[in-house]
Amino acid sequence: MPTGTETIVYSLGDGCSITDIVIGKTYTGTIQGFANFGAFVYLNSSIKGLIHKSNMLMSHQEGDTVIVRVGNIRDNGNIDLEEIVISSYQIQPVVCKRRTTKLEELNKKVGRSVTLECQVAQVKQTSGPTIFTLVDESGTENAAGFIEAGKRAFPDVNQGDTVRATGDVMMRGGQVQVELARLEVLHGPEAKEVLDRIEQAIDDRAEPDEISLLIESPVLEKLKPEMRKIAKQIRRAVFTAQPILLRHHADADGICSAVAIEQAVVALINDSGGDYDTANYLFKRAPSKAPFYEIEDIVRDLDYATRDNIRFGQKMPLIMLTDNGSTEEDLPAMKMAKVYGIPMIVFDHHHPDEIVDQYLNAHVNPYHVDGDYGITAGMLGTEIARLIFPGVDQQVRHIAAVAGVADRSEAPERQQYLNLVAERYTEEDCRKIALALDYIQFYLRFNDGKELIKDILDLNGDHDRYRNMVDLLVAEAEFAISEQVKTCMPHVISSSLPNGAHLFQIDVEIHAHKFTFPPPGKTCGEVHDRLCQQYAGEPVVTLGFGPDFVVLRSRGVLMNIPQMVRELRDEIPGAGVNGGGHLVVGSIKFVEGMRKDVISRLSEKIGEFPTA
Amino acid sequence: MPTGTETIVYSLGDGCSITDIVIGKTYTGTIQGFANFGAFVYLNSSIKGLIHKSNMLMSHQEGDTVIVRVGNIRDNGNIDLEEIVISSYQIQPVVCKRRTTKLEELNKKVGRSVTLECQVAQVKQTSGPTIFTLVDESGTENAAGFIEAGKRAFPDVNQGDTVRATGDVMMRGGQVQVELARLEVLHGPEAKEVLDRIEQAIDDRAEPDEISLLIESPVLEKLKPEMRKIAKQIRRAVFTAQPILLRHHADADGICSAVAIEQAVVALINDSGGDYDTANYLFKRAPSKAPFYEIEDIVRDLDYATRDNIRFGQKMPLIMLTDNGSTEEDLPAMKMAKVYGIPMIVFDHHHPDEIVDQYLNAHVNPYHVDGDYGITAGMLGTEIARLIFPGVDQQVRHIAAVAGVADRSEAPERQQYLNLVAERYTEEDCRKIALALDYIQFYLRFNDGKELIKDILDLNGDHDRYRNMVDLLVAEAEFAISEQVKTCMPHVISSSLPNGAHLFQIDVEIHAHKFTFPPPGKTCGEVHDRLCQQYAGEPVVTLGFGPDFVVLRSRGVLMNIPQMVRELRDEIPGAGVNGGGHLVVGSIKFVEGMRKDVISRLSEKIGEFPTA
Amino acid sequence: MPTGTETIVYSLGDGCSITDIVIGKTYTGTIQGFANFGAFVYLNSSIKGLIHKSNMLMSHQEGDTVIVRVGNIRDNGNIDLEEIVISSYQIQPVVCKRRTTKLEELNKKVGRSVTLECQVAQVKQTSGPTIFTLVDESGTENAAGFIEAGKRAFPDVNQGDTVRATGDVMMRGGQVQVELARLEVLHGPEAKEVLDRIEQAIDDRAEPDEISLLIESPVLEKLKPEMRKIAKQIRRAVFTAQPILLRHHADADGICSAVAIEQAVVALINDSGGDYDTANYLFKRAPSKAPFYEIEDIVRDLDYATRDNIRFGQKMPLIMLTDNGSTEEDLPAMKMAKVYGIPMIVFDHHHPDEIVDQYLNAHVNPYHVDGDYGITAGMLGTEIARLIFPGVDQQVRHIAAVAGVADRSEAPERQQYLNLVAERYTEEDCRKIALALDYIQFYLRFNDGKELIKDILDLNGDHDRYRNMVDLLVAEAEFAISEQVKTCMPHVISSSLPNGAHLFQIDVEIHAHKFTFPPPGKTCGEVHDRLCQQYAGEPVVTLGFGPDFVVLRSRGVLMNIPQMVRELRDEIPGAGVNGGGHLVVGSIKFVEGMRKDVISRLSEKIGEFPTA
Repeated sequence: MPTGTETIVYSLGDGCSITDIVIGKTYTGTIQGFANFGAFVYLNSSIKGLIHKSNMLMSHQEGDTVIVRVGNIRDNGNIDLEEIVISSYQIQPVVCKRRTTKLEELNKKVGRSVTLECQVAQVKQTSGPTIFTLVDESGTENAAGFIEAGKRAFPDVNQGDTVRATGDVMMRGGQVQVELARLEVLHGPEAKEVLDRIEQAIDDRAEPDEISLLIESPVLEKLKPEMRKIAKQIRRAVFTAQPILLRHHADADGICSAVAIEQAVVALINDSGGDYDTANYLFKRAPSKAPFYEIEDIVRDLDYATRDNIRFGQKMPLIMLTDNGSTEEDLPAMKMAKVYGIPMIVFDHHHPDEIVDQYLNAHVNPYHVDGDYGITAGMLGTEIARLIFPGVDQQVRHIAAVAGVADRSEAPERQQYLNLVAERYTEEDCRKIALALDYIQFYLRFNDGKELIKDILDLNGDHDRYRNMVDLLVAEAEFAISEQVKTCMPHVISSSLPNGAHLFQIDVEIHAHKFTFPPPGKTCGEVHDRLCQQYAGEPVVTLGFGPDFVVLRSRGVLMNIPQMVRELRDEIPGAGVNGGGHLVVGSIKFVEGMRKDVISRLSEKIGEFPTA
Repeated sequence: MPTGTETIVYSLGDGCSITDIVIGKTYTGTIQGFANFGAFVYLNSSIKGLIHKSNMLMSHQEGDTVIVRVGNIRDNGNIDLEEIVISSYQIQPVVCKRRTTKLEELNKKVGRSVTLECQVAQVKQTSGPTIFTLVDESGTENAAGFIEAGKRAFPDVNQGDTVRATGDVMMRGGQVQVELARLEVLHGPEAKEVLDRIEQAIDDRAEPDEISLLIESPVLEKLKPEMRKIAKQIRRAVFTAQPILLRHHADADGICSAVAIEQAVVALINDSGGDYDTANYLFKRAPSKAPFYEIEDIVRDLDYATRDNIRFGQKMPLIMLTDNGSTEEDLPAMKMAKVYGIPMIVFDHHHPDEIVDQYLNAHVNPYHVDGDYGITAGMLGTEIARLIFPGVDQQVRHIAAVAGVADRSEAPERQQYLNLVAERYTEEDCRKIALALDYIQFYLRFNDGKELIKDILDLNGDHDRYRNMVDLLVAEAEFAISEQVKTCMPHVISSSLPNGAHLFQIDVEIHAHKFTFPPPGKTCGEVHDRLCQQYAGEPVVTLGFGPDFVVLRSRGVLMNIPQMVRELRDEIPGAGVNGGGHLVVGSIKFVEGMRKDVISRLSEKIGEFPTA
Repeated sequence: MPTGTETIVYSLGDGCSITDIVIGKTYTGTIQGFANFGAFVYLNSSIKGLIHKSNMLMSHQEGDTVIVRVGNIRDNGNIDLEEIVISSYQIQPVVCKRRTTKLEELNKKVGRSVTLECQVAQVKQTSGPTIFTLVDESGTENAAGFIEAGKRAFPDVNQGDTVRATGDVMMRGGQVQVELARLEVLHGPEAKEVLDRIEQAIDDRAEPDEISLLIESPVLEKLKPEMRKIAKQIRRAVFTAQPILLRHHADADGICSAVAIEQAVVALINDSGGDYDTANYLFKRAPSKAPFYEIEDIVRDLDYATRDNIRFGQKMPLIMLTDNGSTEEDLPAMKMAKVYGIPMIVFDHHHPDEIVDQYLNAHVNPYHVDGDYGITAGMLGTEIARLIFPGVDQQVRHIAAVAGVADRSEAPERQQYLNLVAERYTEEDCRKIALALDYIQFYLRFNDGKELIKDILDLNGDHDRYRNMVDLLVAEAEFAISEQVKTCMPHVISSSLPNGAHLFQIDVEIHAHKFTFPPPGKTCGEVHDRLCQQYAGEPVVTLGFGPDFVVLRSRGVLMNIPQMVRELRDEIPGAGVNGGGHLVVGSIKFVEGMRKDVISRLSEKIGEFPTA
């Protein structure tokens, strides 16, 4: 049916479906292939019709553009086309609003074909198909691409890309899965529009609820905006399938801070439709022995993260540090994380060095708002946990009280947290939980002891087991401490300093049991406590030294340990002095051969500080 | 078809099937739902019929009780019901003896629906269905419950519950699996009856066969009842899918004792229809460095057990200690196990402290029946292994001989075990195997070295490899020992004690190679052996000391090491003395700074004991 | 249709198919079983026909031999047979050339039955079928045998057997898999023929391409035949699904040598049709802390290999040592590997002890051809990598340059390798990469740090990340070194030796930081470098000692460390001296208590060597 008059020829957009086609109208098409009875023609990227050979006017090759009139659309969806030849015509695009499906709607679309607009969160090759984890504003789902067993499907699509996916929704082993027909990377404004929409929606969902603090605290009020910032980033990570690695100081306060967060994150993952095992691979809690992020730890963490990234297509993690991460000593690790584009967030109650903030996406620290270490990490963790997932509130609120007791907080917040849970846990209960945590972590070393720690913190719903376990661990710990102290005390050397303070020295290397609980720092603390009782009301400094370190505990002397460290470094070259801690509690390292010089010079310095 | 006469209305019990229904009789039913053509009615919890709308008399809601007459049962199993209205009737229950299927019969029921009465041994959530491991008197099988992918099916059913399960028997990947339609927790007398039946049957199956000991031994005869008790508990654990954790002292005798048990347990698991990999996750053998259950070990074991319990729904394990577990030093670990309800059994030949028995379900120890350490753990293990699974007899009997030689047993049993296997292994072969075990375990550290150890014990069916490996390891071990001794001997300091004994002292910290084979204890033993040869017939005591420990070896002096330890503790406050061992062989720990005092006081004490 | 004349009766060989049968001819057969309508008869092991009961002449039992005439072969493949009885006949075998399929052709045979002739590379039991990994001259594929879930199919067939397999080719999860109907172990000449054919083909494929070296080097030219031998064995292992374990010295040169090989092996595995994860389980790279194969390492490696062998049916591995493996100290490990029949190959640039060669299948070492350690392991590894898989050439060639700089090679080859890559990497870049490798490996300890190491070596295609990571690590390393040196230098003790050399001594145990970077050996090297600058042009010897070791660095003194070690052993009995290294650089161990004697005698000896 050739025609010579000027005609409108429609160009069917990729978003259009068969219902957008009008019988009798004329369209551009592309020859896809040939059969005995005619030629198949694509009208857009997914709609195919047939020109029967009786309706073909010219000979063609695959890929040729043709102009066709739609003769009929049959009940079974087949489209009959007729080739036409026109001397003069005008092309008019048909733009169809794409009917994209949200991921949360997939379970209502089983057996149907859908179009999705998403971001790719993970690309995992299996021995069969390639699995793409897709994220949109409504949730997360897996989609499978298959080209050949064990071969990468859609190799141009990478993690982080914004894509348009077309495929069929199937049930596989009881799970919804999209079998991908097309997966197209979006670029330019189209990508931006989709991405902005997803980002905006996730950003909205990630915004924590407006909830009050558990207690009245001017310091915590001032920290609230930054706590919300941390909570939001954690929530974002969960919503975008980004793994979270939580590193914390391996003492009772650090454990408290991390476990509160763990409870909230796991609850949020499960609440967001996470599979039964999702929380196990998206969240890791790892105790750090040092009170900072050691190079050894970051190297191990990067090793695992890069392997998982390459082998399992997992995103690089979000790293969170609690009860450490505030000081210069964390810088090497922070710099390495930055090279790998790993975001890092910190909440801590150690005195912060300003320099770390350039590496952090958020940093909650009481010292930023005229607070001090009395607002312990466990208190902060409890409040942040509630912002992450308010539903854990009742479950975790006693953790703040335990943390306050554990770190001997002298802040008024301590008593408020204790009051909150007084019906279930006395102050003595909290002290015992804290000691039990310290004791078991000593034997767990670098393991998180997941369920044991939860038992001790009474988070597993078995109150009897909690009580029996804590009672047992406390009995063992107290026995071990009393044995250690009994062994040490006869070897304590006593002297008086010019400022009137008592100076006590104990060599924990040769006068205490090693490699057992209590470790040197705690041993020194226990000795110090007893000496303080003995010399009640007087200034007391206790030095517990080993071959290449000294632990300092003091009462009533206005020391400044970081300042002494700096001076010793300068005054005794070749002693390799470093270390630090708080102003009046800390530890100093040096080379073994210079111990005598360092200790004697240190004692002099201590004697120069005023007493309180 | 309404009727006014008094009728019997049957109430069909849950155990009844379609063949128990009689056409023409009248039954109570419950409306389950409606269709265009009528209403579906449940006659019991599983049998459904239809009242066609032409046969309905009244309007109903879901859940209403109705009285129906069975009009017809069609060939395809459809049941046609007619509603009736009766003014006066009498309800008569139809109790059908439930046709429960035993788990061992499932493979004959593929494609059919079955009812099972079982105990739940494990509840494991997968990314698809929830898997319930069921145990009854005949065996163990898995059943799958499905509600939604990754969601817990039958959330009210927990591990340990007694249940009635209904479902279809399917083949999945070639394995029989029950797809659960119902899973009902039984309570009260019904639960008790099922449980008693299962318990009784398992108890019967768990009872070891009546078999004789390999040798004639009054001591072993007296231990036999308690050995049977241990064997029975192990067999029970296997039959009820409870994991077994076997911790053993990491020396040759300890390895022998544990490997004999390992062979029997693995054979029993496989014989009981265990899957090819069942033995790998239900049985773990773990060497312990110390001759007792250290806190570090129990903490790690509890950490893993609680994780597996939560994440994989696995039962808490049965813990078995061999060649350790008899002494006070094991108490902290035993107390922790008790908090978690973990049963613990021990067989050992160290001198037992009575206090441990309150924590143990069974405890075989020759000292309980006037035997001594000459009945080694490996001998006990071999006999218990035969009780667990008699089929391993031929395979393991030489292990007892190796153990006797390894621990230098002076009991008459040693020669009898050697005689038993004399055709295959000479005493020298046994000595070499023992040395090879000690040598390789030193380098394996805390790994069980599963196949390597079996090769050395000639349990892998490759006699040439066994011989080559043992010859090689013995050559390496003897060379290392001779180098160590050559280095040490020039530094041995000799003196005479008041009781006429020779006292030899060697500082193994500074006069022996460290962190290599032989370790300090063995080094001291080798030095002692050579000194004993040199001073044949005379009393000899050798002390090998390090910074904070001393190893004692002696001949011909009637020492009592535990007593000396107690005295030293009291006499030298601040030395932190502890330790022990056998009467005349052992080791003592102290703090480094008090070594001189401890060693000198110890030497005095040794000099006060009579010589033999 | 009985007949009395002499007839030819054909016996159909197992290789024959239905198309080899001629209608009307007479064959021998075996009764397989009975149905209502007649008897089934096997004409060979796979072709079955039916004698309708109307055509049976006699009564038979299963297994009886019968003579039958082929009445008809129907379109559906059914064969109609008629029993005949003959008084006199002659048997004539029908030998059909077997139509075996090559494994590489399987993907064209989906849905069809095939016969394969292969070697069995792995036998892995799963919870469903038994998986046999088959290898023939064309490739590797899995075949599944099923008898009962979790039970071993074809229990007579073991790894290493030569087999004929018959089965159907299926697609399972998108992968080609053969479902085995028969699996027959071949013996005698038939096995030999198949094996020879496979061996010959694999041998041909394994032969490396003829390619030139990257640079002109007489030493490397002479090593080429042995390098080709190594490459061929690696290629063979890949083609026969044998795991490869690569152990290397954990310094920069050792890492370079191993990573070059890793890149080539992984590329070859993927190129040979390996599944996406094949490279992860067939290739392992493991750093060794000592510069030899320690007993601890071989024991761990054997432990894993024997477990994988038993549990997963995996072949015992090929072990490759790089930058170690040349010396007497490797002998114990080599002997153990030999007991387990594990082939071992080495390339190294340490001075070799001839005795190792009896344990090695190949050994590339420049000292074998008048070269020296200036031809570093990394250079050798780069050239061997190219022989293994030429496609990695461009990717790995800078590794040789980095290795040359890392080990301070003074060979002319160093500059040539640097020239090759000068446009992309300056000598300073290479120095920085080497230092970054040393630094990160210190913190990785025994982990291979797979992706991190590839990032540092710029092998991951992200040049910016490479540069940022190297810059960061170098900054950290240089700061740590400068701190260490600053601490050490004030404690260096200086003296003059009779031969005019300066002797410097530093106790790195008490005058350097421990357990941190730089470790003692590197600390000593850095101190030495600074002293050499200070005393430019003069002979300098630096001893860095700890409690039981001394590290030697020297310039301008013609020392012979191995000779001194031998002399010290003899001259100071009871010092337990051992150790070694190169002639002028090395380390010596001894027992702590004899340090003073050893160091003083060592100093004397050094003073006796001539200066250069």
